[in-house]
Amino acid sequence: MRDALVAAAFRLFLERGYEQTTVDDIVALAGVGRRSFFRYFPSKEDVVFPDHERCLADVTAFLDASDPGCDPVQRVCEAVRLVLRMYTENPTFSVQRYRLTKQVPGLRAYELSVVWRYERSFAAYLRGRLKGLHDGTLRADVIAAAVAAAHNNALRSWLRSDGQDDPEEAVEHALGYVQSSFGGRGAPAADQESEDVVVIVSRRGAPMWRVVQEIESTLDGG
Amino acid sequence: MRDALVAAAFRLFLERGYEQTTVDDIVALAGVGRRSFFRYFPSKEDVVFPDHERCLADVTAFLDASDPGCDPVQRVCEAVRLVLRMYTENPTFSVQRYRLTKQVPGLRAYELSVVWRYERSFAAYLRGRLKGLHDGTLRADVIAAAVAAAHNNALRSWLRSDGQDDPEEAVEHALGYVQSSFGGRGAPAADQESEDVVVIVSRRGAPMWRVVQEIESTLDGG
Repeated sequence: MRDALVAAAFRLFLERGYEQTTVDDIVALAGVGRRSFFRYFPSKEDVVFPDHERCLADVTAFLDASDPGCDPVQRVCEAVRLVLRMYTENPTFSVQRYRLTKQVPGLRAYELSVVWRYERSFAAYLRGRLKGLHDGTLRADVIAAAVAAAHNNALRSWLRSDGQDDPEEAVEHALGYVQSSFGGRGAPAADQESEDVVVIVSRRGAPMWRVVQEIESTLDGG
Repeated sequence: MRDALVAAAFRLFLERGYEQTTVDDIVALAGVGRRSFFRYFPSKEDVVFPDHERCLADVTAFLDASDPGCDPVQRVCEAVRLVLRMYTENPTFSVQRYRLTKQVPGLRAYELSVVWRYERSFAAYLRGRLKGLHDGTLRADVIAAAVAAAHNNALRSWLRSDGQDDPEEAVEHALGYVQSSFGGRGAPAADQESEDVVVIVSRRGAPMWRVVQEIESTLDGG
């Protein structure tokens, strides 16, 4: 019934346009009553994004079930793959929705609020893991936003390609960029002192002896 | 007239609540007609955020006027200070609006769409500056999101403190974190080959010969 309502709604949205389609039109085509529609979807907007509530719950449950010793940035990147899978499970539907969302400002606003809820779910988990660390909530919020932006960048490229490119590869690549920017710094420092990450930044023009000197003094100072 | 409408609207929002206040109530208190209201504000929501359109235009103009040789990440961080100034110019108003926005879901959605427009303005500038570089659009989108998140983290701390803390200092600190994560990588690589930044990441436990080997192969591969 739920799937039939989504299918009927999208057929009408594509034929007549979103604004020109009413809930009455959708239930008439699906052959059910209005009350059945509102049992599944609070509003017409919600039928455009039928899987986000489940996916948001899955993401939160996945993060809640994390091993306390895991790399938190890595873990959030794994959670993002659950979101990607929701899109790639049905490429045709995802591409149709992408086009619809670009045309209807109200749907764009709805989508922004959904993206914001994913980002807050990532941030809540990261805040818990980085609690007590210097700048813990700042780092959590910035990393959550960076992960969401990287995912969106790769996802949108895929949707613009009409679902032709390889979305997994693009998202992995984008998340790799975020991890290289924040990796290690997300992990708690306690009881990992001997495995601390040392980062040396050097100008290409610097002579090797200066670079080695810098490394040695950094390792000594640890 | 515009300021009088904003003042009347906020007085009523605080006294009666946002939902319970109509545009008719606002114009009656301000002593003007409905058409005057709609000349300044497309809707009741817009009177809650009277300065964002001007500030968005200021941010875009500021970025458009950038020196082509400047550090683009630094430049976006400077643009963020224009947004912060809009909030700090009138702390009482900003704190009242923050409380109102937390209570009314429709205003929260409006605010998300405004934040998104700032972020897209930052990203559009960064995309232009990083065009042609490896992962240019990805980097632009991620850095724009990180800058916006850092600003929001510091701004919200200040708003939660009822405007008591020092917002400039908190935002500078938050932007410093973003710049340390992405700094240098934002700058165009062309005609800077010899000054390219090389980053070596090493576990503390790694033997020195491995670290030196890694540096040498990285420098050779440039």
